[in-house]
Amino acid sequence: MEKRNSEVTYKEIYLQPESFEAINNTLGDIYGVLDKVFAEDYDELIFTGCGTSLYLAQAAAHAFSSYNAIPSKAVCCSELYYFPETFVKNRKVLVLPITRKSYTTEVRMAIDKVRSYPGVKSLAITCDQDSALYNDFMILSPDTAEDSVIMTRSFTSMVYLAAVMAMYAGGKKDEIAAMAGYGDSARDALKKMDDLAKSIITEHEGLNLFITLGQGINYGVANECMNKMKEMGLSNSEAYFSLEYRHGPMSLVDENTLIIFLSHSETVKEDAKLLAQMKEYGAVTVAIGNTASADLKDADYCLDLPYGYNDTQNAAIIGFIGQFIGYYIAEKKGIDADSPRHLSQAIVISA
Amino acid sequence: MEKRNSEVTYKEIYLQPESFEAINNTLGDIYGVLDKVFAEDYDELIFTGCGTSLYLAQAAAHAFSSYNAIPSKAVCCSELYYFPETFVKNRKVLVLPITRKSYTTEVRMAIDKVRSYPGVKSLAITCDQDSALYNDFMILSPDTAEDSVIMTRSFTSMVYLAAVMAMYAGGKKDEIAAMAGYGDSARDALKKMDDLAKSIITEHEGLNLFITLGQGINYGVANECMNKMKEMGLSNSEAYFSLEYRHGPMSLVDENTLIIFLSHSETVKEDAKLLAQMKEYGAVTVAIGNTASADLKDADYCLDLPYGYNDTQNAAIIGFIGQFIGYYIAEKKGIDADSPRHLSQAIVISA
Repeated sequence: MEKRNSEVTYKEIYLQPESFEAINNTLGDIYGVLDKVFAEDYDELIFTGCGTSLYLAQAAAHAFSSYNAIPSKAVCCSELYYFPETFVKNRKVLVLPITRKSYTTEVRMAIDKVRSYPGVKSLAITCDQDSALYNDFMILSPDTAEDSVIMTRSFTSMVYLAAVMAMYAGGKKDEIAAMAGYGDSARDALKKMDDLAKSIITEHEGLNLFITLGQGINYGVANECMNKMKEMGLSNSEAYFSLEYRHGPMSLVDENTLIIFLSHSETVKEDAKLLAQMKEYGAVTVAIGNTASADLKDADYCLDLPYGYNDTQNAAIIGFIGQFIGYYIAEKKGIDADSPRHLSQAIVISA
Repeated sequence: MEKRNSEVTYKEIYLQPESFEAINNTLGDIYGVLDKVFAEDYDELIFTGCGTSLYLAQAAAHAFSSYNAIPSKAVCCSELYYFPETFVKNRKVLVLPITRKSYTTEVRMAIDKVRSYPGVKSLAITCDQDSALYNDFMILSPDTAEDSVIMTRSFTSMVYLAAVMAMYAGGKKDEIAAMAGYGDSARDALKKMDDLAKSIITEHEGLNLFITLGQGINYGVANECMNKMKEMGLSNSEAYFSLEYRHGPMSLVDENTLIIFLSHSETVKEDAKLLAQMKEYGAVTVAIGNTASADLKDADYCLDLPYGYNDTQNAAIIGFIGQFIGYYIAEKKGIDADSPRHLSQAIVISA
């Protein structure tokens, strides 16, 4: 039988619930590692990664700082490698590399470099056991096997892992317990997001610019949505902090622009004003959030997330939309997203 | 006489040398303020702004951390406003808002919010005297009057001001003294960048994606180049940390893609490999740096910056290219960049 375009990636998208459940089944192991890691104090946490993993680092840093009064930031691996003194000199820093594959060149280069400074420890957030080889500590997303080049379940499962870490370190085990049924919530959300994305792409033939907006933990997720639409759909896509969108980038908005609001409970009031303005400029608008259909009812498409989660808990689910929009753009264009142009599973740079 | 498209913005681009010279003529005032600011210790510096000023904050944070062993980061105003506890709770933080106009809604909201926390002081980096009304301290770029909506000299002069601040706080007054002739260096660079941009746009009719890459202090500058091409030229434009470009976004590269390398002395070796790879995919490539014609000689266009400056010193000059590319895209499309679509001088949000 002939291979169907993007079938491997599409199948893996639907395996995300199993990845969350595998983490829920290994929470004891994760807590054991975190107890050791946070037996020490740190001046700062630096989450690092490349591409999808950098966007994950952005979400993880926001989550951690929100649950723990320790400064955190996301820095891409190449910056740590090129400018280690700028980031870790004379400080007690926990560096957290995030990877699907342990052998991505820049991750290895960055971690080897910063670990040569005396105040640095590293905790890998990873899908690959081999990350243990060059890190002080490691927490693992144990069920994320991906045959595709495109990261889907590896991304969302590590978002989930980072949320668990933030909550545990912040003494909020009750919020982790409230995610016991996360796999089933994800199954429900997958079906709804799939239908939503299919409708959007089918009903708007001329779309040529795909924007995702989000604040707080949703900013990193928005960036990953941007990345999926680019990698899978070879389309012009961008992501911004929601209120940043007025400061320049909205100059491109017209009736061929899709704008997806990953709505955060803190931002719905301002999001509603922004959404109304973007509709005036002709944009097709989509709102996703706990009560999006009430908060952002002017949107052309609304999807509520009725699972009773807070914004941090929602983060591993809310970005499914980017995966499906990427998939349906690819379908429409006849692209096989299983073999994305120019890309490979891990970027290895020759010496 | 009929108004020529973009003539106001174009004229202001050529007034940037005067803005640098005005700062050089008021260094004593700036040092006096900085002596007061840094009489105290801070756990962290947070540079903040919106749009162009956020990109400036990214460059400024990198410069400051490189000259001073104090953690620094850039955070957009809306994030500080929505999530003050995530960023400033229980810490001694110097928050540095960057603005052309003091009345941008989000800047005011963010600063009023974070200053309600006991450990926070604020130092405005500004073109507007009225910033003094809601900040503890202020350093001013005194000659940046702009009639245009598009920020040009306000951006570069505050990059210069941020570099001066980083050097002064880091005890490197010799590096500031070495910029005594910065106005003349800028005049020379303006002419060369203008010619370069005109050649690129004239010789490549089909360009439809404009990418700027930079690491370190050049990342924020690259983002501002992205922004200029979007605001002035209504074109798809993006910016990335150079090595991040392989991790997804390069999937869009073809013969209609322009890639500008803002080359940093630390990154030329890896930049050369990346540039060669992007040429294989068909991209039109441009390299700008101190010795770009030697380091990145495979580029389709090279421009050397022979002024004897280091990377931090170069930062206020190297981004001129984005202003001129934006201008020549607008010229080609018949757009008047003096009246950019959907935009205004400062974003004011109604309550």
